[in-house]
Amino acid sequence: MQKRILAKTAAGWEGVAPEGYVPGERTAVVRHTLVGERKAAPSDPGPANELRYFEVPPGAVTRLEKHEHEHFVIVGEGVGHAIVGVDVREVRRHDVVYVAPWEPHQFVNRGSETFGFFCIVTADRDVSQTLDAAELARLLASPAGAFADPFGAPPPRPKPVA
Amino acid sequence: MQKRILAKTAAGWEGVAPEGYVPGERTAVVRHTLVGERKAAPSDPGPANELRYFEVPPGAVTRLEKHEHEHFVIVGEGVGHAIVGVDVREVRRHDVVYVAPWEPHQFVNRGSETFGFFCIVTADRDVSQTLDAAELARLLASPAGAFADPFGAPPPRPKPVA
Repeated sequence: MQKRILAKTAAGWEGVAPEGYVPGERTAVVRHTLVGERKAAPSDPGPANELRYFEVPPGAVTRLEKHEHEHFVIVGEGVGHAIVGVDVREVRRHDVVYVAPWEPHQFVNRGSETFGFFCIVTADRDVSQTLDAAELARLLASPAGAFADPFGAPPPRPKPVA
Repeated sequence: MQKRILAKTAAGWEGVAPEGYVPGERTAVVRHTLVGERKAAPSDPGPANELRYFEVPPGAVTRLEKHEHEHFVIVGEGVGHAIVGVDVREVRRHDVVYVAPWEPHQFVNRGSETFGFFCIVTADRDVSQTLDAAELARLLASPAGAFADPFGAPPPRPKPVA
């Protein structure tokens, strides 16, 4: 049963167990799944979107990836760099990042404190993909290339079977 | 053109003009439309969701309403009360509220500072409705009734024509 009101605590959110970036996998990035869950089929019951909070420790990154579904990101804490397409910008609390379909993106923590952000995605979504060689070359040659880390996070996993 | 990275400023977000709660209408509640916009038809271009930030001044409330679309809410500042169904709870920064389809809900500021929250909804959504007499009676007889204000915000307006 999806809770309606989730209180923030010092360590996370009431009743939400922190997981790895990819659930079940041990990674530097910590994930809190706050509302909803990934659907194997659009007709599955439950919230239409999934709201997660990711904690990126100093020196860590999220996956450099692309996909058809959109990201709606709200920074919660710390200072990070958001790469969207070939742009990069320092972001901090309550800055907002929108990632449109198929735009390469990555979140990078070069700071000395945890960088954390809320991220909303549709519950029924396509699997993340790594960048192809041309996209990667273009990104690495851009200002964002100074922050990108193509192999800093585990590769995408297949979509769960319906 | 939807901006990809929106920096928080002291007064709101870079490049985002604050509006009334209902755009074009003068109300106590201030709205910042950060990503996307309401679609008149699902096939309209643009982000699938709309991300807004609402500032509720002391003593003010959002509309007591219900609708088929879901709300994903993240508190940004201040202290408020979230009514969902017949439950009510004090909420503060980074508490999360999920409103499921057709659940009556309202956000109330009984504090002395601005209460602000992010709210994500689908861009193509149904029009908000006021509660019917039975729903209102049930709500007012519940603990949430001590906080609800059925007429504290302007009534819903019709959906824009496609």
